[in-house]
Amino acid sequence: MNPVNIGLMGLGTVGGGTFNVLARNAKEITRRVGREINVTHVAAREYNPDSLGSLEGIKITDDAYQVVNDPDVDIVVELIGGYEPARDLVLKAIANGKHVVTANKALIAKHGNEIFAAAHDKGVMVAFEAAVAGGIPIIKAIREGLAANQIEWIAGIINGTGNFILTEMRDKGRDFADVLKEAQELGYAEADPTFDVEGIDAAHKLAILASIAFGIPLQFDAVFTEGISRITREDVSYAEELGYRIKHLGITRRTDKGIEMRVHPTLIPERRLIANVDGVMNAVLVQGDAVGPTLYYGAGAGAEPTASAVVADIVDVARVLTVDPENRVPHLAFQTDAMTDTRVLGMDDVETAYYLRLKASDQPGVLADVTRILGDQQISIEAIIQKEPPEGATDVPIIMLTHTVTERSMNDAISRIEALAAITDEVVRIRVESLGS
Amino acid sequence: MNPVNIGLMGLGTVGGGTFNVLARNAKEITRRVGREINVTHVAAREYNPDSLGSLEGIKITDDAYQVVNDPDVDIVVELIGGYEPARDLVLKAIANGKHVVTANKALIAKHGNEIFAAAHDKGVMVAFEAAVAGGIPIIKAIREGLAANQIEWIAGIINGTGNFILTEMRDKGRDFADVLKEAQELGYAEADPTFDVEGIDAAHKLAILASIAFGIPLQFDAVFTEGISRITREDVSYAEELGYRIKHLGITRRTDKGIEMRVHPTLIPERRLIANVDGVMNAVLVQGDAVGPTLYYGAGAGAEPTASAVVADIVDVARVLTVDPENRVPHLAFQTDAMTDTRVLGMDDVETAYYLRLKASDQPGVLADVTRILGDQQISIEAIIQKEPPEGATDVPIIMLTHTVTERSMNDAISRIEALAAITDEVVRIRVESLGS
Repeated sequence: MNPVNIGLMGLGTVGGGTFNVLARNAKEITRRVGREINVTHVAAREYNPDSLGSLEGIKITDDAYQVVNDPDVDIVVELIGGYEPARDLVLKAIANGKHVVTANKALIAKHGNEIFAAAHDKGVMVAFEAAVAGGIPIIKAIREGLAANQIEWIAGIINGTGNFILTEMRDKGRDFADVLKEAQELGYAEADPTFDVEGIDAAHKLAILASIAFGIPLQFDAVFTEGISRITREDVSYAEELGYRIKHLGITRRTDKGIEMRVHPTLIPERRLIANVDGVMNAVLVQGDAVGPTLYYGAGAGAEPTASAVVADIVDVARVLTVDPENRVPHLAFQTDAMTDTRVLGMDDVETAYYLRLKASDQPGVLADVTRILGDQQISIEAIIQKEPPEGATDVPIIMLTHTVTERSMNDAISRIEALAAITDEVVRIRVESLGS
Repeated sequence: MNPVNIGLMGLGTVGGGTFNVLARNAKEITRRVGREINVTHVAAREYNPDSLGSLEGIKITDDAYQVVNDPDVDIVVELIGGYEPARDLVLKAIANGKHVVTANKALIAKHGNEIFAAAHDKGVMVAFEAAVAGGIPIIKAIREGLAANQIEWIAGIINGTGNFILTEMRDKGRDFADVLKEAQELGYAEADPTFDVEGIDAAHKLAILASIAFGIPLQFDAVFTEGISRITREDVSYAEELGYRIKHLGITRRTDKGIEMRVHPTLIPERRLIANVDGVMNAVLVQGDAVGPTLYYGAGAGAEPTASAVVADIVDVARVLTVDPENRVPHLAFQTDAMTDTRVLGMDDVETAYYLRLKASDQPGVLADVTRILGDQQISIEAIIQKEPPEGATDVPIIMLTHTVTERSMNDAISRIEALAAITDEVVRIRVESLGS
């Protein structure tokens, strides 16, 4: 069979990794696909040739539009990142009748509906396995591997930087700021860590997972997002005392009232496998009605793990180049005319259990007041720990686990608790998920 | 698009589950595939109609050949199990130009080469996701999701019965025979548990995993197989003391000398995620050169988890019915003309670390003799525990962990150790794998 010609845009971490994996494993990949996959045209502003295999015979340009307009290119691989010019380049490639592979979660989460509509009209594919959880083939698992199921919920550790920070905080009793600094020095976190630690990166990925799980349009703006920057080592340690670990999860769930999409720190029972996913690794737990719980674990970032997903997409696209579009796996797992606009639940209507940490002055009656307020809101308490005041302090930490309740009720209860004279600081609230089937 | 007609052979646990999942999730599946999937013809000797959805309008026969010869059937789903008549029925279906989906690991492991050759000649597909690790889409992950990688090794908990037994032995300090009896009462283990506890079922699955990982023909007979029936609760507890858990693993690895295929009890460091896969659950750890380690976890058996994989295969096949065969994913992941006959390493040549348990009479010099023999074979000791004799006994248990060495050297050392007068029982040997990347 004819070789497939790849136009590669971007030679940064993932672009370089993709170039190198395609070169190093060319023989193995050809053994699988039955045809060669050749990078024929590369667009890069700057790159380090020493970190790359041979560029001989490959056209190189600093103008990415040269690649999307190259009539010899079959598949355009977009590894530039960010919203623009990535969006414009991808749309242009589609307009030129080219298939696209991208690792760009921000682009797909924000502009995916527009991009997939354009691709559908042109009969081309836009593959994005690398956009979620790096090297883990999670898009394929959900779209194809679990196609028999009604997906009930997904919960994932989908940001490695955040998981590294939480793991270090737990393993070594360190503070958030201290670990973040180390993560930046190690290159795990950006100089501006907002996307990672405030959950925006995870929200991009979660919006994608929700769409392919439930057949709803991409709705990044509807994801409730809370970061990990306010998690303290005390909370990590109290959680442990209660038999839980704190993980930064993206969660999407289909309920009778609508679809939940939320990213926030979460207490998980320590015996759950996903509670034991440590360091920069990612894992996604998917609950299907037939299969029950399944979990997918691996590296969520890095040059070659992400390249692994990019190249798998290239192979997939190469295999179905000649396939009638209506027989291909749909971009968002469901046929375009079978997408639904099931409503996304506002956070107020989401039901979870809660971990609460209060600081109270050490005087009689505080606990009675707090439990009365919770009782008024129909919130039952599952566990409670009252600690001695720390050395030199007069305030008493009170830690509680509640049963499931709506966020609205919890907000009301917290407002009333914070208004108590004996409560000396804001109430810390971390959501709790059992993740049982 | 036209509906796809399914001929279903077998209405037992998995057959019934498949029938019910197709019925219950028909709408969701059609939303994904864009066409209906209809069971039109069923072959079953006996079945319980009360456990099944409506059979109205479906042809039912007790002669499975009626199904494979039905001109209206597009895809034959073989859920009878066993070697014959499953093999003959599948070959007949292929000869009739029908695609086949099967959950039959024994059939694929033993007769897969013949079946895939016939399918290749006829240009039809034989899909077998459900043959390995039940509902976990592991075949898809390896064949497609990791297509960019040179697979380095795979280690899997691929028999739920065995994992249930080992988990119970550890959690509750129970004996093998005692837990096996419970597993049989719970329906997790067959009346004749040989296939599960002696590793034959796992060896079937491992042979399949090795083929799709490395592009070698199926070679079930070359799998080294050791069961868990000789694992004692003492070993489980000593392993724990050393920071390990005992799991029954299928392991296949590509080395410079050849490909390892082996099923045996294995000590794994307790911090590894796969060491924490408990009960009847399965998990497969796959190491690729680009992606690093990835792990896939879920239910390895049961009606609906297995049906999840069967139906996913039906969907996959339905999508590529009209595709040029040479553009389909090859049965064993590699193009037929790109398969290699890399040699399978005999167990003597496999290198692993070892856990050894010796019983010695409590006299001076035994340990010196043992360590001298190990030294003679170039076996270094990583850890050693000498216990007090148990109450009322005079023999001393000695537990050792060694560094990596060939099985041949270890066999020689064990023979010499067992010949020592002070050694009062057979040496127990369990292999140790770090499963680090």
